Amino acid sequence: MRIIDVREVAVPLHGNITNSVVNFAEHTVSLVAVQTDVRRNGRPLTGIAFNSIGRHAQGGILRDRMIPRLLAADPGALLDPSTGLLSPARVLECAMRDEKPGGHGDRAAAAGAVELAVWDLLAKHHDEPAHAAIARAFDRRPMTTGVPVYAAGGYYHPGDSLDRLRDELAGYADEGYPTVKIKIGGLPLPEDLARVEAAVEVMGGGAGVAVDANARFDRAQALAYAEALAGLGLRWYEEATDPLDYALHRELTEAYPGAIATGENLFSVQDVRNLLAYGGVRPDRDIFQMDAGLSYGLTEYARMIEAMESCGVDRSQAFPHGGHLINLHVVIGLGLGGCEAYPGVFEPFGGYSPDCRLSDGLIHPGQAPGFGLEAKPGLGDEITNLLKELDS
Amino acid sequence: MRIIDVREVAVPLHGNITNSVVNFAEHTVSLVAVQTDVRRNGRPLTGIAFNSIGRHAQGGILRDRMIPRLLAADPGALLDPSTGLLSPARVLECAMRDEKPGGHGDRAAAAGAVELAVWDLLAKHHDEPAHAAIARAFDRRPMTTGVPVYAAGGYYHPGDSLDRLRDELAGYADEGYPTVKIKIGGLPLPEDLARVEAAVEVMGGGAGVAVDANARFDRAQALAYAEALAGLGLRWYEEATDPLDYALHRELTEAYPGAIATGENLFSVQDVRNLLAYGGVRPDRDIFQMDAGLSYGLTEYARMIEAMESCGVDRSQAFPHGGHLINLHVVIGLGLGGCEAYPGVFEPFGGYSPDCRLSDGLIHPGQAPGFGLEAKPGLGDEITNLLKELDS
Repeated sequence: MRIIDVREVAVPLHGNITNSVVNFAEHTVSLVAVQTDVRRNGRPLTGIAFNSIGRHAQGGILRDRMIPRLLAADPGALLDPSTGLLSPARVLECAMRDEKPGGHGDRAAAAGAVELAVWDLLAKHHDEPAHAAIARAFDRRPMTTGVPVYAAGGYYHPGDSLDRLRDELAGYADEGYPTVKIKIGGLPLPEDLARVEAAVEVMGGGAGVAVDANARFDRAQALAYAEALAGLGLRWYEEATDPLDYALHRELTEAYPGAIATGENLFSVQDVRNLLAYGGVRPDRDIFQMDAGLSYGLTEYARMIEAMESCGVDRSQAFPHGGHLINLHVVIGLGLGGCEAYPGVFEPFGGYSPDCRLSDGLIHPGQAPGFGLEAKPGLGDEITNLLKELDS
Repeated sequence: MRIIDVREVAVPLHGNITNSVVNFAEHTVSLVAVQTDVRRNGRPLTGIAFNSIGRHAQGGILRDRMIPRLLAADPGALLDPSTGLLSPARVLECAMRDEKPGGHGDRAAAAGAVELAVWDLLAKHHDEPAHAAIARAFDRRPMTTGVPVYAAGGYYHPGDSLDRLRDELAGYADEGYPTVKIKIGGLPLPEDLARVEAAVEVMGGGAGVAVDANARFDRAQALAYAEALAGLGLRWYEEATDPLDYALHRELTEAYPGAIATGENLFSVQDVRNLLAYGGVRPDRDIFQMDAGLSYGLTEYARMIEAMESCGVDRSQAFPHGGHLINLHVVIGLGLGGCEAYPGVFEPFGGYSPDCRLSDGLIHPGQAPGFGLEAKPGLGDEITNLLKELDS
């Protein structure tokens, strides 16, 4: 098995929504195809993945640095000697050749898309869903029941109102989501609190509501929100402040009794180790949201889970950022806590495909080989176009 | 004053040299021009800068994200209201619109090149060297004498030998460099130690030799080298391990009595705060090597210096990574400890222009306006080509 081509296309995210820090109207995502010389169903076996959501497409880094390294490599050096198939870890190592240490930002997402495409390819090679290939590679038994899922919504919309928010969240409850997440930090505290209280009312209690400040707050704001939210019994209080400010994170865990969630903006195992060492993490409750697609892929992500466990944090406290099919397979394959879902936003990447089933608050994957991205409306067309470009 | 265009070109670094982790043969650097509607000497006033050395050109991030934001911005929003001229801080803020927090990697270098080009432009507007504009902006008196400088060389070359290394270092001493830096970590410890001992001999003592492991070592190697090097009285022991592994850095400062240098792979003030909080830094001796061109530019770099000083570390302990004209002006303008030089390597960016003067171990800048990049052989031609492209 050898790589014969790697292609990337930047696909716009649909929707003009805003959290307290970022508007997503001009965001893009890298859709990546890794094509091999193995024939399957009359065409080259090709792995497909993308670099999750929220950190932009990375075509420059892929085309200028990583794809040339992969195409110039000795094909044998990219294989797992025990299987003769592409090794995600070796593909990652090759993509990172002559890169300096540290600086875990955009390139982590570029590499993540390529590494994950190799997982899709391996699963397709074995004609199995990606979660099965992932579980086998990490010596795990895949979860056979569905996976807990929450609806991440409650963004700030132009001309927003509490009634619009209530309707949105009631819709998620009707669809079968037992838990929702809403944004905070985009309005003054009293108005944000009214939003949160409305959400708690709609969901029948704080346990059904998580809140996300997207790192907007300074120390005083983070602590003021902690105090205001403490009595509501929320599912979690997410990313109050700078994701790398471990000292403030520690202070927050001392001030806020409930679960605190963070990690979606940590892109290397060393950053996660630092959070564990300095962030005042409470192993019995806090939530970790690192995202393989933004973090060099599953090879590095699995090391992050290992780092959590070596500090006494169970992997069931991992809820990856990014509500999409790739992370559904990662959660099942590695036996993590649960998934995010983005009903109706961040199309064509966000959300699940029609062959996935939501019941009793659990999301169940379909049986398509790989991550099953081809079955996702809108995304399937982008993949078809990318494959046509590869063939031409 | 308004920005009318921003252009980037990826310029290859010359030379096939290797440290213990990275070969630079395929490295590139982003040369950036920020063109305004102000006329000067018959053509548009244009600022020029680059994103230092070692973290690759960033044309994708610039063209896909940052340049469109700058060109779409309200021109007034990019100005310093007190001067009516472009504000580096506001240009940076605009370039970073809708970017999530954390993830300080490639985009920090992309933004750094643009922000520094604004400093070049402001200095040219006032017809003064960049160090004068920098000193004024940060309420400092520019250093009137030259700046301490050391020659960073001692890379691993194909077919290398101790004699070649000795000749190289003796050449630096002959040119007037009182201190040199050589690479370690690319050979087994005994062979590396022979290199270091040869360097100490050539330079007449350990105070004239710094060593740099480029983050190659694991814990055991870092500590073994610390023990082997401890008696040599070296100028400093640089970047033994992962730049984000603050716990190991602390351990190393407890094991190694001499100065330890790090920071060239920290790209945000929050990362520097973490090093200061957790890294066991000894304010009376350790060396900080953050580099504005890799770290969102001078606006963020000045915040890093502030963070150092708030922990009792004098700015004279800052020796920025990157031996080139931009950092020479930064060091003079901010009153830092000294500069790196890359005699003969990393052309056309490394090293100084012929109007700079090395005497008594100090490097003195020329009098050209801005960073004076146009006077640098090889780089001047690249700038001419970039300006032609802007005019066409």
